[in-house]
Amino acid sequence: MRRGESTGDLPLHILITGAAGMIGRKLTARLLVDGKLNGQSINKLSLHDVVRFPGETMRPGEQPIPSVDIFVSDLAAPGEADKVIAARPDVIYHLAGVVSGEAEIDFAKGYRVNLEGMQALLAAIRAAGESYHPKLIFTSSIAVYGAPFPDVITDDFHLTPLTSYGAQKAMCELLLADHHRRGMLDGVGIRLPTICVRPGKPNKAASGFFSGIIREPLAGQDAVLPVADTVRHTHASPRAAVAFLVHAASLTREQLGSRINLAMPGVSCTVAEQIEALRRVAGDKVAARIEPAPDELIMRIVAGWPQRIAATRAAALGFTAEKSFDEIIKTHIADELGGKVAA
Amino acid sequence: MRRGESTGDLPLHILITGAAGMIGRKLTARLLVDGKLNGQSINKLSLHDVVRFPGETMRPGEQPIPSVDIFVSDLAAPGEADKVIAARPDVIYHLAGVVSGEAEIDFAKGYRVNLEGMQALLAAIRAAGESYHPKLIFTSSIAVYGAPFPDVITDDFHLTPLTSYGAQKAMCELLLADHHRRGMLDGVGIRLPTICVRPGKPNKAASGFFSGIIREPLAGQDAVLPVADTVRHTHASPRAAVAFLVHAASLTREQLGSRINLAMPGVSCTVAEQIEALRRVAGDKVAARIEPAPDELIMRIVAGWPQRIAATRAAALGFTAEKSFDEIIKTHIADELGGKVAA
Repeated sequence: MRRGESTGDLPLHILITGAAGMIGRKLTARLLVDGKLNGQSINKLSLHDVVRFPGETMRPGEQPIPSVDIFVSDLAAPGEADKVIAARPDVIYHLAGVVSGEAEIDFAKGYRVNLEGMQALLAAIRAAGESYHPKLIFTSSIAVYGAPFPDVITDDFHLTPLTSYGAQKAMCELLLADHHRRGMLDGVGIRLPTICVRPGKPNKAASGFFSGIIREPLAGQDAVLPVADTVRHTHASPRAAVAFLVHAASLTREQLGSRINLAMPGVSCTVAEQIEALRRVAGDKVAARIEPAPDELIMRIVAGWPQRIAATRAAALGFTAEKSFDEIIKTHIADELGGKVAA
Repeated sequence: MRRGESTGDLPLHILITGAAGMIGRKLTARLLVDGKLNGQSINKLSLHDVVRFPGETMRPGEQPIPSVDIFVSDLAAPGEADKVIAARPDVIYHLAGVVSGEAEIDFAKGYRVNLEGMQALLAAIRAAGESYHPKLIFTSSIAVYGAPFPDVITDDFHLTPLTSYGAQKAMCELLLADHHRRGMLDGVGIRLPTICVRPGKPNKAASGFFSGIIREPLAGQDAVLPVADTVRHTHASPRAAVAFLVHAASLTREQLGSRINLAMPGVSCTVAEQIEALRRVAGDKVAARIEPAPDELIMRIVAGWPQRIAATRAAALGFTAEKSFDEIIKTHIADELGGKVAA
């Protein structure tokens, strides 16, 4: 389906890769509740991941979307991407990937999953023929930027990643833009800020502690802080991330122009400001549950990350995020804790 | 060999990929004449290309370098990169690639040669083990930049290529920087401006006419101009390009810092200014041999190319090019025409 051509009210088939991941599950949940994407009905959802899905996804009967297909496979393995593309999804959310800490520790795995996974997906789209023209929304990251930085990173600041993860994301952005430019698909790359507060257990992302120091204290547990509290970084909530993904699908080629990879908005604050926000929202006792525990690898990775991002184009295109870290904490309490904090 | 460690006066083994290409032949010729690279003796030269070499390269007996090995193979084919890396060259010049026009016409071939060729070379270096740590000098291109541009492109302007060739070069830069950062090699990427005046026959590069409108008239032949004479672009001579490559091998990790991909200096001028320079150097009769012949593909590709490049870091690191287009034309007449012009 070519965006801008008369798709009429034809219902959408949406594919999500990495659908068992945190953002993937939240996007899936939102689409299952809405039954629509930007006003257009969804009649089929294809969910892909390399790991098995948690049980709650597997109840298509209760959902407003008639058909939910599940694929569990390694997208970079020969033939697997072709299988998920065979039913020609109209909109593809490519969220699958190995996180930053893991890609730094396992060089080969990072390139295989993050770069070759994207290449396999793009090859499958090309192989489906010229009549197939999906919308592909790719989650990139602000890890594509590398220090030294200006005070605020503008939309035309160059990409000099200081992690393999960032290098892989930047390469995927280039691939996506080239496929978009050549008319093989409609692409949008969204550079997510650090998504905070992540629910659930810690993952291997170097950025994990930004969530941990809020999530654990709110749940009545102690949290470790591996960096100095002067570290400044940019954050948005999981709810904001899902909103970015939904909004990205609404953008036309005309709106996007030739630069389709966009830094997303977020809240820029220091760790000390995060902790102060936690104190304001949940009290002294909760904020006291954070213990310094310096970690050199994390400190080195995070030191190369951006602090403030202008995200001017994203704002002009209608992407919005929280305005304060207090708001991010309140979103977590509302969405994950049923409004309750462990005092 | 790790640069900066005591290599003493151990003679160098140098590998050149794309050695049968224009720049490759000129670099080879210079190394064969000098017998040294930045003062260090060369005891072995490995020359690789996918096409057979012209006869003049194949006379190791007459040269000051004791050993010259020739490899003719497809670098991206399984096992081929391992063969050229097996003798563990100390310095690798990776010049091999498909030019911009061809990469635009043949999508698959461009990615195979320009991206997968680099990936195969890097994989072979990694496979050679941690004790192997070559210097890898990669020829990137100003095609990594894409319009719209500021008046002058600074070193921190982002990369939004508008050709597949530019996308492939940008991806290779990211790969090179990541391997450098992780200590697998010492990398330098040099973004060549358009190399002008190219000797010999036209190639499939979209930039070919920039040379053609000088080379053909100087040889007494008519030349076609596929774009408007208001087109502004940045140029350096083949002799300057070889000097960039030689100088790049002298740079240490400390000098380079984390941003190892550098825009090279050059002469920024319009096509009209090129033609005026030709008139000054060779006379009215020669300059009159240029005929307009608009070509839409070339116009479209060139419209997305940069006009002026600051190249501040390259200049600070000691890279130099010509100061005027007159000088570029005189270099061509001296190096290729034995000082003579067809009046």
